[in-house]
Formats: sequence, C-alpha cells, structure tokens
Amino acid sequence: MDRIKRNERLGAMTRLITEDPNRIHTLSEFCELFGSAKSTISEDIDLIAESLEHFDLGRLETVAGAAGGVRYRPMMSAEKARRTLEDVAAKLSEPGRLLPGGFLYTSDVSSDPRVTEALGEILASKFYDRQPDLVLTMETKGIPLALMTARALNVPLVIARRDSKAYEGSAVKINYISGGDSGRIETMALSRRAVKPGQRALIVDDFMKGGGTLQGMVEMMAEFQAEVVGIGVMIATMTPETKRCAGAKALLMFRSADRESGACEVVPSADFSE
Amino acid sequence: MDRIKRNERLGAMTRLITEDPNRIHTLSEFCELFGSAKSTISEDIDLIAESLEHFDLGRLETVAGAAGGVRYRPMMSAEKARRTLEDVAAKLSEPGRLLPGGFLYTSDVSSDPRVTEALGEILASKFYDRQPDLVLTMETKGIPLALMTARALNVPLVIARRDSKAYEGSAVKINYISGGDSGRIETMALSRRAVKPGQRALIVDDFMKGGGTLQGMVEMMAEFQAEVVGIGVMIATMTPETKRCAGAKALLMFRSADRESGACEVVPSADFSE
Repeated sequence: MDRIKRNERLGAMTRLITEDPNRIHTLSEFCELFGSAKSTISEDIDLIAESLEHFDLGRLETVAGAAGGVRYRPMMSAEKARRTLEDVAAKLSEPGRLLPGGFLYTSDVSSDPRVTEALGEILASKFYDRQPDLVLTMETKGIPLALMTARALNVPLVIARRDSKAYEGSAVKINYISGGDSGRIETMALSRRAVKPGQRALIVDDFMKGGGTLQGMVEMMAEFQAEVVGIGVMIATMTPETKRCAGAKALLMFRSADRESGACEVVPSADFSE
Repeated sequence: MDRIKRNERLGAMTRLITEDPNRIHTLSEFCELFGSAKSTISEDIDLIAESLEHFDLGRLETVAGAAGGVRYRPMMSAEKARRTLEDVAAKLSEPGRLLPGGFLYTSDVSSDPRVTEALGEILASKFYDRQPDLVLTMETKGIPLALMTARALNVPLVIARRDSKAYEGSAVKINYISGGDSGRIETMALSRRAVKPGQRALIVDDFMKGGGTLQGMVEMMAEFQAEVVGIGVMIATMTPETKRCAGAKALLMFRSADRESGACEVVPSADFSE
C-alpha cells in the first residue's frame, strides 16, 4: 500500500470522525486504515481538533482509558447557537404563519433537515452530561428534531404512537390529559420492546403549550421503569405559564400573536441562548 | 488575522463541505473564511476530494459556471452500499422479529439515526439526477428515512398526515385504497402550502406491501400538480408481486417468514445492490 501523506489523510479522517458524532473512535482504527503510527495519527487529530475549534465547528475530545480514543461532539459556541436560534425565530415570525384558531404554522421548519440538524445539535449539547440511552418523542411533528438530537447523541430514537399498531408488537398503552384548556383524555402507546428498565430517556418534542403530551411521555417512561434525564422542545408558548410538565427546556418561545394583523413573534428562549 | 496553514484549514473545510450535502459552496466563501487565494483553496479542495474518494467516503464535485463551486454528495461505492444493506438485512432477519399476524418488527431499525442516515444516502444517490425539489412521506414510520434522504439531497421534507390538523392550515384531503387484501378506504391529508405546482417530488416510505399508501401519495402529488420523479422504500415484500404503485425502488426485500419458527428473511434488493 502507498504511504498516505498527512494532506491526504486529514479530509477522510475529519469526515469519519464528524459523520459519527459522540462515538469513540480508537486511534488503532485510524492506524490500521491509514497505515500510520499512533503518534502520527495523534498529531493529525490535534490538527483537526484545532481546526474545528478555531472555526466554531464542534469539539474533538480525547477519552482516556482502555476504551479510549477520540470523540466528536457538534457543540457550537453560545454566540453561534444564539445566531442559529435567531435565524429560526425570524423565519417563524414571518407574516402569514398565523392560522385560524391562533395556531402557528411550523411544519416546514420542524421538518427541514438543515434546521432540525442544527437545533438537534444545540439540544444535544445541553444533555451530553446526562448521558441519555435513548431519545423519546411522540408522533408526528417532533420526529425530525428528535431524530437529529438522537443522531448528535449517538443513541436510538423511540417513537410513541397515538394507538398501538400490529407491526409494533405488544405495547404499553396509557391515558394522559392533553395540555389544552379542555384537558381531553388522550391515549399514547409504545412498543414493549422499545425501552428497557433502567434506561435513561431524553424526551424531545416540537411544541409545548400545556405540556400534557410531554407529561404523558414522562408517565410512559415510569411504566417502563426508565429514568427521564431531560426534556427539550423546539417551541414553548408563553401561556399558560404553568405547564403540566416541569423542567422542560425550550429552544424558542412563541411570545405573542396579533390575530388582527396575523403577525406573531417567536424569539430564542433563555434556556439555550444565555 | 494570522495566516492559516493548509493543515489547519483541511479539517474545518472538510466539515463545512460534508455537513451540508448537495449544497454548492463557492470558492469565495472559503477564500474569505480562511484569508487564502482561490488557487490555494482550489488545491485544498482537490486534496479533500482525493482523500474522500480514496476511502470511499463520498464525492466532491466541481460545478462550473456563474453559480459554480464545489458540492459534496455522500455517494458510496456499489460494494460499500451492498455491505451496508447486508448489515441492515441481517439485523432485520434476527430471530424474534416476527409478530402475530406475520408482521415484521422494524421500528428500532427504521428510526435508528445511523441506519437511516446510511440508507438515506444510498437512496438519495439513485435520485440526484432526477433533481427532486422535495421528499414526501406519509406519517409515521417512514419519517426518519425520508428526513435523512432529504438531508442528503438538500431539499425539504414534506409529511402527509392521516388527518388534517388545525396547526397545518388548510389542507388537501384525499381518499385512497390501502394496499392490504381488504382494500380499505383510507384518508390522507397534506397542508395546502406544503407543495407548489410544478415541484418535483421524491416519495419515500419505510414499507411497501400492496403499495396502496405510495399510490395515495402519487395521487396526492397529482392534486398539487407536482411531478413524482421517483419512489423509494426501505423494505418491500415479495408478495403480492403486483403492487398498486408502479416503479418503486426498494433497498431491502422481505422474502419470507416461517410462522412456526418465527424466522424471517430480509435481503438486499437488486434495485440498489447491483
């Protein structure tokens, strides 16, 4: 095999490390792939780490010990996170998004691959130290953000359904009280095999008004004897101030809507932009 | 500003290009960021392109013209795609996945960020030349694969619902015939503002048995005067051989299930592994 020069390694190595966030790559992996000595690979990694850090593109962290190696976390500076959230907030504040009933049209944003990837990385960065084993969401609109958060954390995504399906196998089905003023009783189902006792769950959803659905997910995790280690949402409404579910962190706040003009205001939440 | 050396640029440049598949980056973008001449940046790009190509990590393509620049497509070799599909097929053929009624439990795989990212890249690679403007799926289980396909193509994801929702605004609602033997009439709704006339849609779903849901999405696109430029699914069943929807390409085939032993066989489809 031809000797691979540093200039010819750095591109491939950067791609391999960054496409697989929060997974530990051993130095031996790269030594074998590139036919290089550990000291050489170690220098490569330092160069990539500096380059990513310098341009605010995330962190390469060295993990010591027998299972050690190097791990990429797409964590951005508070400044870059704030700018990202401001861009999304501006998009959601565009005229014409207010729908009959005071609802905000968010579907184009909440299913955009680029937007959800960036927001998922911001969300994940708050919860790395809680070491979740899985991300849980409830169908449908929260799935893209939850998937991208799970991607950044390198854990599986688990999707609760409104009803149990034959192709999900035996399921746990619970009733919960929806967050609206009406407080309707709703059902939520989750495949028995999706979560194991003792697992640590990060709950993610796209929108929190009353917090009923999130609280339903918290109760679902109790049924599975799983631990909820965090709750994150894309947008939370200012009212009602008291949510059925405590402790949720929001990326954005839906502050107000002028039903007459159709104007609405979404702003970055203090949970992530400070 | 300090002069940034090549070794210090390559990591950041690789990350910037590869995190944003199928988007054209102009050379000026990088000249400005790194304070380097165009010829220098151009050499950097050649180095990264060779490095990615050498290790089967996707293609950097130069796009000529006024809107020109460089674009990354995460296209892998046929050999690597085949290995990826074989790995997923092996996982889906594990004992214990067969559910009552002959259904296959796939939810853990179909919502796995790593698996859907790899499958989405394989799916996208078949459709770059069809230049889709959007990816369409129907809730729920196809969303992760559809999102990752949209990510690789750099287009929005659009999600059809079983019913219209107040927070989706005015919607088009159609009836379609589900693929099962029963041929039940089902409904599908899609927000009016989600698709524009003349747009090119790539339809993606997780599972095709009779093809009824896919055909429903084809008919939905006709309602929007949008053009369907391709149809891709994660798994197709061997039977029924004739699907309600023609021309779908499958990544994997669900070949057989032995209800007595609970064993089932999923294999890479010839659509993508040849």
